[in-house]
Amino acid sequence: MQIIITGGAGFLGVRLARTLLARESLALRGATPQTIERITLTDRVAPPADLAADSRIAFVKGDLNQHLEADAAAAQSIWARAAIIFHLSAAVSGECEADFDLGLRSNIDATRALLQACRAAGSCPTVVFASSLAVFGNSAAQPLPPVIDDRTLPTPQNSYGIQKFIGEQLVADYGRKGFICARNVRLMTVSVRPGKPNGAASSFLSGMIREPLAGLRAVCPVSKDTAVALASPARTIEGLIRAAEAGDADWGARTAVNLPALTTTVGAMADALEKFGGKAAADLIRWEPDAAVANIVVNWPSVIDAGRARQLGLLPDPDFESIVIDHIRENPRLQTGKLT
Amino acid sequence: MQIIITGGAGFLGVRLARTLLARESLALRGATPQTIERITLTDRVAPPADLAADSRIAFVKGDLNQHLEADAAAAQSIWARAAIIFHLSAAVSGECEADFDLGLRSNIDATRALLQACRAAGSCPTVVFASSLAVFGNSAAQPLPPVIDDRTLPTPQNSYGIQKFIGEQLVADYGRKGFICARNVRLMTVSVRPGKPNGAASSFLSGMIREPLAGLRAVCPVSKDTAVALASPARTIEGLIRAAEAGDADWGARTAVNLPALTTTVGAMADALEKFGGKAAADLIRWEPDAAVANIVVNWPSVIDAGRARQLGLLPDPDFESIVIDHIRENPRLQTGKLT
Repeated sequence: MQIIITGGAGFLGVRLARTLLARESLALRGATPQTIERITLTDRVAPPADLAADSRIAFVKGDLNQHLEADAAAAQSIWARAAIIFHLSAAVSGECEADFDLGLRSNIDATRALLQACRAAGSCPTVVFASSLAVFGNSAAQPLPPVIDDRTLPTPQNSYGIQKFIGEQLVADYGRKGFICARNVRLMTVSVRPGKPNGAASSFLSGMIREPLAGLRAVCPVSKDTAVALASPARTIEGLIRAAEAGDADWGARTAVNLPALTTTVGAMADALEKFGGKAAADLIRWEPDAAVANIVVNWPSVIDAGRARQLGLLPDPDFESIVIDHIRENPRLQTGKLT
Repeated sequence: MQIIITGGAGFLGVRLARTLLARESLALRGATPQTIERITLTDRVAPPADLAADSRIAFVKGDLNQHLEADAAAAQSIWARAAIIFHLSAAVSGECEADFDLGLRSNIDATRALLQACRAAGSCPTVVFASSLAVFGNSAAQPLPPVIDDRTLPTPQNSYGIQKFIGEQLVADYGRKGFICARNVRLMTVSVRPGKPNGAASSFLSGMIREPLAGLRAVCPVSKDTAVALASPARTIEGLIRAAEAGDADWGARTAVNLPALTTTVGAMADALEKFGGKAAADLIRWEPDAAVANIVVNWPSVIDAGRARQLGLLPDPDFESIVIDHIRENPRLQTGKLT
């Protein structure tokens, strides 16, 4: 079995690849598990050394759009050999607000070109499309309901959310036409995301834990009572793999499945940081309200009734403390006060 | 005031142009009414003689995509001078199912190119986008609720519906960015549509009235108890103009407004035909079930709670008999038994 992960050198792509390599096999859409022979990562930056060193990993470097324009029609293209494509690559929310054309190109054009490549391949691969909670935007003219479920009308209030929602529609219709097998999955805000801050408005929701635990300062641009819906990296990867492994009948409609999310507050996150990282870590958070970021974040939904995910056996993280503990366990070199 | 109507030689475009010319002015988004100086119709076929003869009508012949590619960036393009664009042109449902690429090009690419032309013009025109009831598709995996309202999640089950729904998202986001003023309007199935049958699966819902009243045979491919949601041409045009005239606060969210629809059955439509066209007309309907068409039609919603439209003063036709009477009055040369 051959697998492609777009955005494969990003943090989710890397974690997904490592998880798949460790599992060694995948039961595609309820079928008998098959050995994973190759995972091709596409990205603009190289994957980490452990992945690069694994003989099952291939790497296609460069801009995904350019690659698809150049190579998609080739009979022996990677798209023609892949049984599963996890489409994770995207321009993130902050980038898309700053550069409208970049968002159109990276999030709509690339997705459509990828789907066209699958259609040209003619092998009906399974496409797991990483959509986002960002499809749900609150506005004065059309407030979101207090609880989001799988039938809630998305009303995106930023270009990233619009573009992800358009991606879902394209994936659904290419699926309906039989060009692919469609798996639309809405990822929740991931915390604690490893690595560095990025252009996403949600970046601080990882940074406010990750940086202090590493002895670095972090800025929290929203107030402590801000409610947020989060999922750990492990639960997020679990959701992506479940999407690939669920049988068609179990998965259900081609519209998107909301992954589960823990509802917590930024204050409770800071408390968990202090509990396991000590007061010194908590003191590294600078509470510095930023109206622009706060305005984005408070308009995200914070309570998700992830009914379809629950039917698939996917549950939210039990509490934010367990997310902090996982992060510390996965990063043993962190200087933490309480947990070693 | 300059206005563009894409698909301006189609039946809705022609009727809209005639209605606007007769009104002579338009109160754009709640502003003081302004005289309509020019209406530019874009289409692949020429408009009828009465429009062509009106000095206020301009005509841009050809493929909309090609026109936009060639001309949109020009500083003096029609897009830079238009205060309002009614974007009606589209490939219809049957065409899009038969030719997937045609649908992508005519319904997604053209809409995006039009929005880019507006953005390039920099004048923030009002774009009234004619979306469709077809965004609501029923499926076994995700049945539609019995009543559709403005917050119902669209789950399109054909490419036309997907493409219209994507168009709504693009219009909403270009509106949010301030590139246009967005007016997303979902048109109901129009009956009685003048002209000839087209590739739309809904074509028979006009043909079964129009053809017999003109002494011609018509095929009805669904059973008499099939419930349908319909709007007359007059109500449809009223909705499009209201979208342009409603102030921003009255209009509300950039997500689509469902226009009102009369819920009736195909059998009741045939009864109304017989009442005003006589038994001879009713006998011209050949009841010939077509599973492919029936499967599309029964999965369309038939009960619409058009709350936002109602707030804007838009109401459904009172009954199908009044729709038949309107059609006969508007087509005085019809040979009808009862109404002259």
